[in-house]
Amino acid sequence: MSQTVNSARNITLVMDFYELTMSYNYFKQGKIDEVVYFDMFYRRNPDNGGYVLFAGLQQLIEAVKDMHFSDGDIDYLRSLNVFDEDFFDYLRNFKFEGTIWAIPEGTPVFPYEPLVTVRAKIIEAQMIETFLLVTVNHQSLIATKTARVVQEARGRAVMEFGARRAQGYDGATYGARAAYIGGASGTATVSAGRMFGIPVLGTMAHSFVQSFDTEYDAFKAYAEIYPDSCVLLVDTYDTLKSGIPNAIKVAYDVLIPQGKRLAGIRIDSGDISYLTKRARAMLDARGLEDCKISISNSLDEYLIRSVLEQGAKIDSFGVGENMITSKSSPVFGGVYKMAAVERDGKIIPKIKISENSEKITNPGFKRVYRLIEVETMKAIADIITFADETIDESQDLTIYSQFNKWKNKVLDGGTFKAIELQKEVFVDGECVYPEYTLKEIRDHVEAQKKLMWDEIYRLEYPHEYYVDLSERLIDYKVKMLEEKRH
Amino acid sequence: MSQTVNSARNITLVMDFYELTMSYNYFKQGKIDEVVYFDMFYRRNPDNGGYVLFAGLQQLIEAVKDMHFSDGDIDYLRSLNVFDEDFFDYLRNFKFEGTIWAIPEGTPVFPYEPLVTVRAKIIEAQMIETFLLVTVNHQSLIATKTARVVQEARGRAVMEFGARRAQGYDGATYGARAAYIGGASGTATVSAGRMFGIPVLGTMAHSFVQSFDTEYDAFKAYAEIYPDSCVLLVDTYDTLKSGIPNAIKVAYDVLIPQGKRLAGIRIDSGDISYLTKRARAMLDARGLEDCKISISNSLDEYLIRSVLEQGAKIDSFGVGENMITSKSSPVFGGVYKMAAVERDGKIIPKIKISENSEKITNPGFKRVYRLIEVETMKAIADIITFADETIDESQDLTIYSQFNKWKNKVLDGGTFKAIELQKEVFVDGECVYPEYTLKEIRDHVEAQKKLMWDEIYRLEYPHEYYVDLSERLIDYKVKMLEEKRH
Repeated sequence: MSQTVNSARNITLVMDFYELTMSYNYFKQGKIDEVVYFDMFYRRNPDNGGYVLFAGLQQLIEAVKDMHFSDGDIDYLRSLNVFDEDFFDYLRNFKFEGTIWAIPEGTPVFPYEPLVTVRAKIIEAQMIETFLLVTVNHQSLIATKTARVVQEARGRAVMEFGARRAQGYDGATYGARAAYIGGASGTATVSAGRMFGIPVLGTMAHSFVQSFDTEYDAFKAYAEIYPDSCVLLVDTYDTLKSGIPNAIKVAYDVLIPQGKRLAGIRIDSGDISYLTKRARAMLDARGLEDCKISISNSLDEYLIRSVLEQGAKIDSFGVGENMITSKSSPVFGGVYKMAAVERDGKIIPKIKISENSEKITNPGFKRVYRLIEVETMKAIADIITFADETIDESQDLTIYSQFNKWKNKVLDGGTFKAIELQKEVFVDGECVYPEYTLKEIRDHVEAQKKLMWDEIYRLEYPHEYYVDLSERLIDYKVKMLEEKRH
Repeated sequence: MSQTVNSARNITLVMDFYELTMSYNYFKQGKIDEVVYFDMFYRRNPDNGGYVLFAGLQQLIEAVKDMHFSDGDIDYLRSLNVFDEDFFDYLRNFKFEGTIWAIPEGTPVFPYEPLVTVRAKIIEAQMIETFLLVTVNHQSLIATKTARVVQEARGRAVMEFGARRAQGYDGATYGARAAYIGGASGTATVSAGRMFGIPVLGTMAHSFVQSFDTEYDAFKAYAEIYPDSCVLLVDTYDTLKSGIPNAIKVAYDVLIPQGKRLAGIRIDSGDISYLTKRARAMLDARGLEDCKISISNSLDEYLIRSVLEQGAKIDSFGVGENMITSKSSPVFGGVYKMAAVERDGKIIPKIKISENSEKITNPGFKRVYRLIEVETMKAIADIITFADETIDESQDLTIYSQFNKWKNKVLDGGTFKAIELQKEVFVDGECVYPEYTLKEIRDHVEAQKKLMWDEIYRLEYPHEYYVDLSERLIDYKVKMLEEKRH
């Protein structure tokens, strides 16, 4: 109880207590060797968008690999007086020995499809639930948000600047990782640079300018130390009357005499559109056409789109709180639901029914495929099947809406390819998944994007991409629902 | 670059890169011994509320104490090719040796008043900025949100259940700490229980029910293991037709024969108001009046208020994503601004002007006092003064709006007490602040609340509490603004 923020970490206990109460029950009931299947999926795209950029798998893998209960953890659990020593012996030797399939990071994914599927002994499958969800929910949320921001920046660089407003240290660090997957050019957060090799960037705060007697002195001092990458923050006192004139003066007094150029100015307040147009004109009039203008003031995808539509003169954006917290939609509602149990080696599908019809699950051990139209090489829909089904690309394929069997569509044989989305990540407790670099993940984002119609990327009212079911799966689901209701 | 989520932590590098570029500049410019003052404050209450519950100080203290650059950190910084070896020598021996004042955790605080004030050598003051902000911003946000939720629960228990939707592992763990400060009765997050001794609670997920052949079997198994604390989740299939009847049956089949009682049921979907009224009637009709009803389905302060107004029969609430992310207002915009520099032992106030008038800072080394009316023992206003001013409680005191000197108020001498809000936390690098238990912090929340008018706690259009300036401070600020503008 006296761990500090800097203690060695133990992600294992980032666990809802009910995982332990349930596990103890399974343990006492002799269900310890029972094998079950769980799916992680989500129901709604954040920000009413058209998709989610899946992220966080690498950290999930690390957390599963490192999962263990330390003696200190067990002492703590003993202090609760809820469990017995047999259970602590079990926990002391606990290791995840199940199988996990997951969709690669950087893949666009859609509601209701299984992003991660787990087959494991019931306690193991249950124990990883919370950190699986927090890891994937958090990073997928920030990657998706960042992709929206980057899209609206239309090729201009977007730097992630949000650490100070993130929800905790991990929010800052893993958020920066997710933002980089989502297309950010880099981050201001040094821990993310150190841990993940993400490019870090940063120049000065207002305090730097204030710490000198005059703004000119501050700019001059900065230019002297960083003649090759001098970006000056021009809004500490008055952007147009003081900041930009002083920046231009320093360019001529310090940089140009050494054959250097003023790399850029940054504006952090005021009306972006107006100020950048004025700034651009002032810089150009003094021959500083190559001086970049960077902006950082409560930006999000909508404001960026709006100021660019107004002709704002901006070369790069620093985006902070709205992106690192996904402020407009700060929760990614991924869930982890039991899909099946094994009895005597046979898979028995399980369903969860609910008063809220959107909370009804798809039963069974399943696979998910992306269906690519051969003519356009674009994705038409994803289809969820039972795991033991195969898709014959040469035959006609009927795909069914998850909620209404009458809503279906026939794909002609030979016109489509079916690409399985999930990959094996752990097999019987052994990690079999490569550790991809962030560059490889970003390349995957680009490659996947080419497969999708642009219409799913629209900010407002995007095209609703279909995630449909196979005939066997919809029929089974309907049958289960009818049985449970009676 | 291969640190995993479970590595030993180093919060030091949760730092914006510009802290390093500025620091290197100060280092090269010979400004290393220059002493400066910074204030951490915020501008707007989250959720348009009337106040913020300040939290996170204990973790800030730990981060400052532990602050250091490891050899690995320095190797990483060297790889960036921006700094030189002299600077790395400096970093290798870096230690925070400044002075920090802060308001105690659990105190209600208000816009523009300094919550944390730092006096330190310029590099030290700058280097702690990012983790200071992320720590205090995050925990203050969640503590404040939780206090709103707890207030609307009107004495019913509120459990923090949000880990899976938190923004990262720290979002879950430190968020649970903040929620406990804000009045939550406990948390589902085991790591928060282990680290901070917060009561943990949890029973079962839908998967537990699904893993048995029937709902009845699942409930029976649970009751057998936990006869003294049996809370059953009743909405896996059909709350009214299956869940509650099965729960009642298990109460009579398993618990009552042993002289035990059904502790509670939990409902996680459907219309809370309708279902709890029906559930209460069904339980009462079978003599289970003592069975508690717990609810957990996308709750927040507004929904809780609304269902209680409708007469919902609820004993406790489990609140998840909306509280752990402060979903309706997920950013706490605390800032850290330079207030003064020392030159030859003299304090020179500094100001930051802005196109956005709300971004103008209060200059100088300051103190903040809460003014308590003797007659009511309630707080009237807070006043910010220069640190070398004293308040004579026997004399009339005029307090001035931060933005308009004509807006002022006179407090008659002898009618008020002035209580200084900030305490010394570090003095010349030594921590002098006690490590308060969470119980002590919660007691402080209650004691402070008694000093405030209820009107600041209203969810909508709360009373705007005044944070005013002393005459000397407002005069100095106006003079600086006039000078800078000309």
